[in-house]
Amino acid sequence: MRIGILTIGNELMNGRTADTNSSFIAREINLQGWHIEIMMSVGDDFDKIKTHLHYLLTFTDAVICTGGLGPTADDITTAAVAKAFDLPLYTDEKVLAYLKEIFVRFNLHWTENNAKQALFPQSAEVIPNPVGTAAGFVLPVQEKLVFVIPGVPSETNRMLPEGVIPILRRYFPQLVQHTFKQTVKTFGLSEAAVDERLARVNFDALGVSVGFYPVFPENHLVLIARSDSQEQAQKNLQKALDEVTARLKDYTFSYGEQTLEEIIAAALTEKKLTLAVAESCTGGLIANRLTDVPGSSVYFERGLVTYSNDAKIQLLGVPAEIIHQHGAVSEETARLMAEGVRGNAKTALGLSSTGIAGPTGGTKEKPVGTVYVALADGAQTICRHYAYRWDRKRNKLVSSEAALFLLKNYLQGKV
Amino acid sequence: MRIGILTIGNELMNGRTADTNSSFIAREINLQGWHIEIMMSVGDDFDKIKTHLHYLLTFTDAVICTGGLGPTADDITTAAVAKAFDLPLYTDEKVLAYLKEIFVRFNLHWTENNAKQALFPQSAEVIPNPVGTAAGFVLPVQEKLVFVIPGVPSETNRMLPEGVIPILRRYFPQLVQHTFKQTVKTFGLSEAAVDERLARVNFDALGVSVGFYPVFPENHLVLIARSDSQEQAQKNLQKALDEVTARLKDYTFSYGEQTLEEIIAAALTEKKLTLAVAESCTGGLIANRLTDVPGSSVYFERGLVTYSNDAKIQLLGVPAEIIHQHGAVSEETARLMAEGVRGNAKTALGLSSTGIAGPTGGTKEKPVGTVYVALADGAQTICRHYAYRWDRKRNKLVSSEAALFLLKNYLQGKV
Repeated sequence: MRIGILTIGNELMNGRTADTNSSFIAREINLQGWHIEIMMSVGDDFDKIKTHLHYLLTFTDAVICTGGLGPTADDITTAAVAKAFDLPLYTDEKVLAYLKEIFVRFNLHWTENNAKQALFPQSAEVIPNPVGTAAGFVLPVQEKLVFVIPGVPSETNRMLPEGVIPILRRYFPQLVQHTFKQTVKTFGLSEAAVDERLARVNFDALGVSVGFYPVFPENHLVLIARSDSQEQAQKNLQKALDEVTARLKDYTFSYGEQTLEEIIAAALTEKKLTLAVAESCTGGLIANRLTDVPGSSVYFERGLVTYSNDAKIQLLGVPAEIIHQHGAVSEETARLMAEGVRGNAKTALGLSSTGIAGPTGGTKEKPVGTVYVALADGAQTICRHYAYRWDRKRNKLVSSEAALFLLKNYLQGKV
Repeated sequence: MRIGILTIGNELMNGRTADTNSSFIAREINLQGWHIEIMMSVGDDFDKIKTHLHYLLTFTDAVICTGGLGPTADDITTAAVAKAFDLPLYTDEKVLAYLKEIFVRFNLHWTENNAKQALFPQSAEVIPNPVGTAAGFVLPVQEKLVFVIPGVPSETNRMLPEGVIPILRRYFPQLVQHTFKQTVKTFGLSEAAVDERLARVNFDALGVSVGFYPVFPENHLVLIARSDSQEQAQKNLQKALDEVTARLKDYTFSYGEQTLEEIIAAALTEKKLTLAVAESCTGGLIANRLTDVPGSSVYFERGLVTYSNDAKIQLLGVPAEIIHQHGAVSEETARLMAEGVRGNAKTALGLSSTGIAGPTGGTKEKPVGTVYVALADGAQTICRHYAYRWDRKRNKLVSSEAALFLLKNYLQGKV
């Protein structure tokens, strides 16, 4: 099935708002095994909407329009679509009653322009909006479908999968396939290296497509299995997942939407372990990421951003002569930082980072991007050395990821 | 001048890549006083590029195409544009020599497909690429202009203002206006409140347009003055800026692209002041933001993420009875945290945060979003109380901003 997208709004044309709906819609449509033929954006203008909508329909089986459904005068999408097909507008009494009820419930003052949101082109089917006042609709014309839904991303993101796709499946049952999707998050391999490791897997033969999504410093894979049989699609997805896991094992950390810090949170909570962190080059980013998870106060005791040598000596008990002899950025210092913060906080685990984020501070022996991360549990201290080559912010981010990845591996018994 | 945008690439059609070029181009074009008529995206397909490019030209004076200029087989934009106007391709020897030189300089292996990037449609003018191998071009056809530049955002972002816009100004000199742009960053007022304060300013009379860009938790304004006279445009921009400053004074912090942490960095460095931070609810985010600035080790001595009460007592010397009596989230604790970290680190300044980020931990007296930030300089300790109502991550972010804003105001002698 060939589908067109028409996003409507003056805010798109002056660049004030970036169109994020089109790529969201494209992803969801591709997930169904259907195809986006063309995407277009125009301003809130009667003639333009009419002209370009007809143009898009000459190349497609359905067009999904977003935007221009608000109650104010500049929102004209419904009227423009009706005019494009010479259809009168009608008031949907159920939608009107729902709108009035919302105004009462939220104690808002009803004005007549709000009734506009209950108007639809004749023969249109209403698509309910679960998260806003602007309902959408689908209009069957010339054996094709024109969808209109709001442009607010939080509303598009609900109404596309809950409203538009079920209707497309109903109108084009011969094109419906069973699809299953699985995200695999990886860290530690470049996109090219992931690609190379997976090069020999015959995903096509399994009816599985693989998308790569770099989310620095992680690489996410999205596997989509499609088949006429639900059972077969599920089976194929599992086979593809097994292949991916076998080849990327040590680099995967999430089979789903969970973040690295959420996985760590679950493991620390389950094992009833507490954690303290001593950071140098990451500057508080590790603590910040750990405390992004609700309930982190259960396991996160403290974080020390020991930026100066004095702080490392005074707060972590790193001997001045170690810093003098090996440098603040060294395996020795990283180990003593992890051990020091653990002892100081009386936690089960101590995690540390020290490195050179840049852009200055590098030397020939220890260039910008040199980083050591260490984890101490009282019995042993594990240290890892990395050489990154990004800018300051990305060096901080990838170093925080390396420290958290080490912690995750430890919690999973992998180090 | 009416301008069309055509972004080209299969990665756009399957949603893997979101099109950020179109909104960037639209903003830059609007800045010139010109108008985006229509935006379109299509896949890497000969016939589609040809058909839709002709369609766009029927509505516009110029079309700006991005994408599909790489050396590989799927990149066909140049050939498709040439075919659209029945033009042969020629090799630009200067571009070819430049490409070969780059391969030598970076010790890369030259393969013949790379020569493709030196091919251009007959009568096209080359647009140099200052940051990549893919040059662009402009093709004058039927008294209109077709631009083709790479789709990599870092390359588009350079070639649009440095290549495309100067050529448009050269071809359409009657449409050239003098424009001046100024960003004003604000914190502490909602978008609606900013709007209300500026409602009485007659920007239209000054020939100045105002854009609002919320960048949580900040609101940025972009003022653009346009006039046939350079002097007048500058004068009008200054008048508009004076009006904005008079009305938003206490809430503005940057007249340009500088971030809050960069402004603080400059002030601390200039005044030769050192800083230590004690964080609770912000969980390391204040330290992380401060250390995002290169060279922050000059003034940033340490950050203590005292998440537990023990850490507040042990590291900051907050008396247990104060926490017991007033709570960890209280003005008293915030003040003692700022004073404690200052004394402990022997810095000129101590900055602190304590609050309830949520989603749990709120009470009737201290609901989620309650936050205290404090700043100690040895002579005095200033404390501010806020009641936010966002989710956990945004409560952390706005609290870090409140603490940094207090510090900025202090450094500017405003508190």
